[in-house]
Amino acid sequence: MAPANTRLPSLQDLQAAHLRILPLLLPTPLLAARTEPGALWLKPENLQRTGSFKFRGAYHKLSQLSPTVRARGVVAYSSGNHGQAVACAAQLLGCPATIVMPQSAVQVKVDGVARYGGTIIRCEGGSDERRRIAEDLAAEGGLALIPPYDDMAIILGQASVGLEIARERPSLRQVLVPVGGGGLSSGVALALRELLPQARIVGVEPEGGNDLQQSFARGEHVRLDVIDTIADGLRTQSVGTLNYRILRECLDEVVSVPDREILEATRVLLLTEKLVVEPSGAVAFAAYREGRVAQDVETAVVLSGGNIAMDLLRTLLAQ
Amino acid sequence: MAPANTRLPSLQDLQAAHLRILPLLLPTPLLAARTEPGALWLKPENLQRTGSFKFRGAYHKLSQLSPTVRARGVVAYSSGNHGQAVACAAQLLGCPATIVMPQSAVQVKVDGVARYGGTIIRCEGGSDERRRIAEDLAAEGGLALIPPYDDMAIILGQASVGLEIARERPSLRQVLVPVGGGGLSSGVALALRELLPQARIVGVEPEGGNDLQQSFARGEHVRLDVIDTIADGLRTQSVGTLNYRILRECLDEVVSVPDREILEATRVLLLTEKLVVEPSGAVAFAAYREGRVAQDVETAVVLSGGNIAMDLLRTLLAQ
Repeated sequence: MAPANTRLPSLQDLQAAHLRILPLLLPTPLLAARTEPGALWLKPENLQRTGSFKFRGAYHKLSQLSPTVRARGVVAYSSGNHGQAVACAAQLLGCPATIVMPQSAVQVKVDGVARYGGTIIRCEGGSDERRRIAEDLAAEGGLALIPPYDDMAIILGQASVGLEIARERPSLRQVLVPVGGGGLSSGVALALRELLPQARIVGVEPEGGNDLQQSFARGEHVRLDVIDTIADGLRTQSVGTLNYRILRECLDEVVSVPDREILEATRVLLLTEKLVVEPSGAVAFAAYREGRVAQDVETAVVLSGGNIAMDLLRTLLAQ
Repeated sequence: MAPANTRLPSLQDLQAAHLRILPLLLPTPLLAARTEPGALWLKPENLQRTGSFKFRGAYHKLSQLSPTVRARGVVAYSSGNHGQAVACAAQLLGCPATIVMPQSAVQVKVDGVARYGGTIIRCEGGSDERRRIAEDLAAEGGLALIPPYDDMAIILGQASVGLEIARERPSLRQVLVPVGGGGLSSGVALALRELLPQARIVGVEPEGGNDLQQSFARGEHVRLDVIDTIADGLRTQSVGTLNYRILRECLDEVVSVPDREILEATRVLLLTEKLVVEPSGAVAFAAYREGRVAQDVETAVVLSGGNIAMDLLRTLLAQ
């Protein structure tokens, strides 16, 4: 964990990280929302390698490890998208990866890890238990533990989403980004603070996991005991320590959306925007379409991932 | 219908048409296929206004009518995507539109026409009957009949798809495009002949509606009596006269794909590429992934539309 007095990264740091990962990224150009052409833009990270933005941070983190460390292998704990991202990045860099996943993980995400050649360890307990198992594996096997969000190399990787948005639409005045552990949101906020200082940066959480919204309200770093949301990628009890520090400084506002609105947004993205987005990836779009943020300014929303469970897709279409 | 000795449009003609429609187009940048990054590119016209490439031709055609003609209104016959495109273009240009649609039209396409304010006339008969009704309406009301594909202004509009592909990836050596009435394919072929002369241009038809493949084999313009394919947007008995003339001159090859492969391609696009594409829009992707064209050259496939029936989406997910 970074000490509280570590300086925040400069624009040059962010750009250097982007250049390191750029050759491996799939382009995810801003798309005009068919429902609001010209007013609303979509950053479709569901089209990114591994189906979420997580590849950016994972590949950046692994690329910064020494070849000797990489050769011993990496380990991560994840309910899904971070695990797929680490497995894919490891495969591209030719190093072994072990991913500790919960029994409750969405099948499409487990399959994703397997597809990229990752070794999967399923475990019964919560995220603390998964973390302990991963830390034990790291200590015993000399593996490098790849944290999901509370890490500057990860944050620098995710920041590339913000750099790309700013370069493509300098006229934006508002950017909405999902908040889970805070890796994506802190990275995007760092980038946009530098490149689009006139834009409002809004974090979006599910109502049943709105720890950052509560943190902002109370002025202290809140950790929730109970999380209840359909957005499986945003079921974090609190944002990371480093992430909180950045978000407190760079984020303008946090809003939250109930599961009902998240599901309806996921459905509209599928049927109208023709994009497959998972609930966690649809929260920013939900906040915009439900009027929870300003409507009269040019806005971009980050669609952070597309690895939706088949059952849920079927449910959305049954309505 | 254009006389056989009409000159084919020049690159300047194509570019002038593109500039006329560009302000109204939604950007559909080439996307890297996650299944084949770097080797295969997707042109996602499912993300275009009205959910298909048809908007390009319809808007171009309407923009070329005189204000007086437009004020009287336009009429079109269509099983779906052309109808939505004409209704949307008419709405943007402030003119009334009447669309003659079959009883069998996919509901999502009927809803689309209604959303854009088009007046819908449902009819029982086949496409000849729909055409007759539309021609009668045109004659009686002084309405301008907007043909679906056998028209140079329509073809010039669709050609913009080819111009955009060539500008974005000049390194392409193969481009696959769906063939129905031949509006899209003849437009794209015209553009690529000019801008990517080194690229192979391949038309793709459903096996159950492969009139152009048979035409190329026999060396004459074939019209099929029976059409049987899941690809509802490609159920044309023959390509148009003008389209045939252009395709014969500019297309390198035609291949066809059975419905089974079209459905599997539609499913892979949904689950892996995270894009909602209708069966007609997936035929080019199907031809590539089933090895019906060269695999060792950089290729783009046009995903021509995304207006898939809800029932079919459910069926794809039930597997």
